[in-house]
Amino acid sequence: MNPTLEIFSQGEEVVTGQIVDTNAAWLSEQAVTMGFTVTRHTAVGDKLDDLIALLREISARADCCICTGGLGPTSDDLTAEAVAKAFGLSLEFDEVAFEQIQRFFAHRNRAMPESNRKQAMFPKGAERIDNDWGTAPGFSLQAGRCWFAFVPGVPMEMRHLFLEFIQPTLASRFLLRPDRLITIRTFGLGESAIQQRIGAIEIPVQVQLGFRAGPDDVQTKLLFPQDYPEAALTALVDKVAAELGDHVFAIGGLGQASGDLVFTVDQLMTAGKHTLAVVETASQGLLAAKCIGADGLLETRYEQSLVRLGQKLGIAVNTDDLPATAQAIASKIHKTGNADFVLVQLYSGDKKTFHDKDQAIILYNTLLTKDGFFQTTGSVAGPIERKQNQAALLALDLLRRNLQHKEL
Amino acid sequence: MNPTLEIFSQGEEVVTGQIVDTNAAWLSEQAVTMGFTVTRHTAVGDKLDDLIALLREISARADCCICTGGLGPTSDDLTAEAVAKAFGLSLEFDEVAFEQIQRFFAHRNRAMPESNRKQAMFPKGAERIDNDWGTAPGFSLQAGRCWFAFVPGVPMEMRHLFLEFIQPTLASRFLLRPDRLITIRTFGLGESAIQQRIGAIEIPVQVQLGFRAGPDDVQTKLLFPQDYPEAALTALVDKVAAELGDHVFAIGGLGQASGDLVFTVDQLMTAGKHTLAVVETASQGLLAAKCIGADGLLETRYEQSLVRLGQKLGIAVNTDDLPATAQAIASKIHKTGNADFVLVQLYSGDKKTFHDKDQAIILYNTLLTKDGFFQTTGSVAGPIERKQNQAALLALDLLRRNLQHKEL
Repeated sequence: MNPTLEIFSQGEEVVTGQIVDTNAAWLSEQAVTMGFTVTRHTAVGDKLDDLIALLREISARADCCICTGGLGPTSDDLTAEAVAKAFGLSLEFDEVAFEQIQRFFAHRNRAMPESNRKQAMFPKGAERIDNDWGTAPGFSLQAGRCWFAFVPGVPMEMRHLFLEFIQPTLASRFLLRPDRLITIRTFGLGESAIQQRIGAIEIPVQVQLGFRAGPDDVQTKLLFPQDYPEAALTALVDKVAAELGDHVFAIGGLGQASGDLVFTVDQLMTAGKHTLAVVETASQGLLAAKCIGADGLLETRYEQSLVRLGQKLGIAVNTDDLPATAQAIASKIHKTGNADFVLVQLYSGDKKTFHDKDQAIILYNTLLTKDGFFQTTGSVAGPIERKQNQAALLALDLLRRNLQHKEL
Repeated sequence: MNPTLEIFSQGEEVVTGQIVDTNAAWLSEQAVTMGFTVTRHTAVGDKLDDLIALLREISARADCCICTGGLGPTSDDLTAEAVAKAFGLSLEFDEVAFEQIQRFFAHRNRAMPESNRKQAMFPKGAERIDNDWGTAPGFSLQAGRCWFAFVPGVPMEMRHLFLEFIQPTLASRFLLRPDRLITIRTFGLGESAIQQRIGAIEIPVQVQLGFRAGPDDVQTKLLFPQDYPEAALTALVDKVAAELGDHVFAIGGLGQASGDLVFTVDQLMTAGKHTLAVVETASQGLLAAKCIGADGLLETRYEQSLVRLGQKLGIAVNTDDLPATAQAIASKIHKTGNADFVLVQLYSGDKKTFHDKDQAIILYNTLLTKDGFFQTTGSVAGPIERKQNQAALLALDLLRRNLQHKEL
């Protein structure tokens, strides 16, 4: 039997629906992957009695509980107090935590408000979880049957603290037999298209098949028991990946570092020491923004008017022949800049089409490399933010395919 | 006292984190707006004993509960059975529901699998909720203190059934007095700094004060009872807003449309028919990307090398005097473009500083308007994504302050 784990989210903003609790799903996935059985998620608001009752309940029924939220400096941040009351502990001042909080403010040249002192008060016996990403340190303690970890609700801070402190602690505290999760990440195929493609492959009963469709990719997940033979695992993953073809941009869980489409592109660009210049239209800066931290991106520009961009670059714009116009833009940028790749994104459709969620725009992506031009066309409908995001990804995917396969 | 409402989500895919439970947030927001106090969200997997125990608990403590999921045809869909067992009811075959399910398949020219017959079995005394959007009808019943509504977990079906059946039923079953939520949105002040500033203001006991700190702003929330006198409400909101000064960029809940910083800037730009050209460095396209849908943004550019940008623009770059360099860039862009505002963002700090979460970069934002130059300086530390986002917001906020106050 796997040890059981619960997720407990605290905060009025969660319980009143002002924010979607993405922490619970993220933490559950991590916990399941580690070998826990996740039994329950609970979210309550900032009510001391509710918090106390729940903490007691959980301490009696779960082996582990990850709690998010309620660690801030304000009067509605009640977690430490609730834990102390639930388990009959006093609150104690933690000198080290206080210094960390002070340092956080000092680094930002800001005076520390008196209210932040509260964040250095922990229930007696708790172990501090240092937080380099925000002011609120977390803490952990054993209560009853359950080992509790309390971390801030800010997703970025929560994820760091989980990966850097909680995960290693869990791995040493619990006897875990983690399943092995292989994630095949694709771009350009919907979930049902994937299901159709791999429908004929026989998946053994011990292997769990799942899908997760996000705005940036679709993930096909294969969960293998820990003792599944390596050769059989590899064979099945290869079979599934083969059916998905060059839509596959990364496979996670096989030992190599992998990530999203940007990560894959960055890896390939870095390995080839390539540099890139971009012209964006529909993505309006988002393509470049996604590449933050990648060294190869030398420049991007967005110009609302294609005619005006042509004027500035000194080239002829033919709105009836966007592929030819994109080639002319790419050639010019290549001559005046010093990037070895130039990626130009144009689209057909007016402002109304772009704003209307029921209408599609046609994207024309052109990549100029030392081997010449590569072009793709794609159609995107939906709300404007979806069009923007897909436009950025379609352009990046053209670059990815070229770098990964040297062809389209 | 408002009636209390809980959200109960059933399904292994929720509890294992394969999907994010967006239903809970959506339903909570609807319920809060109607005048319920949402007290708890719970998600459990497909375990009969857990379901029975939870249903009994909820029937004793909440006035209303909306349950999603577990109504499908497969063996792990246990909701109706759990309800029957929890409250000692028999399961009865519903002729009308069965006909609806048959019709659903007939419309799609598909044979109805035998397993779907189960979806027409309801606990005795339950009222059927017709579902025109899928095969699974929902049902409602009173158990103990609590009125339960059970609907499918598919978001589209759930939303339809809520809006068309549950919401009107709730409005007639409960005496609801919706609260009034005022949200004061600020940029540039932390949550604790806000608390300190408004600490001296007396908040009446009937008014609930809350905060929500996100990556893009901090929201100070005042929740007023429905019958709170309008003049007193306005006076209190004005008092709080006055203490927060020109950090306030929007106030929501007073009848006018309001949104995030980008929304405010877009409104001001549109009202003044202004146009904008941007040069980004640290935000690397994100500033422009955030403005998707806004008509006033004419162009943006990012250049990794400031020296190279200077060469391209034909201006002298002095890296020891970034404010002067920014002015030269802005002037040049103003001359060669046709935007009436030019916003130039530069920063000091090398690549290492930018990547290192423990080091801060100094941002120099320069705005050129017909009234001359306006400049601000700000320091941002943290992970690279935070620096990027704050850089975009600090620049936008300079524009916002100028448009809103015609001063800094």
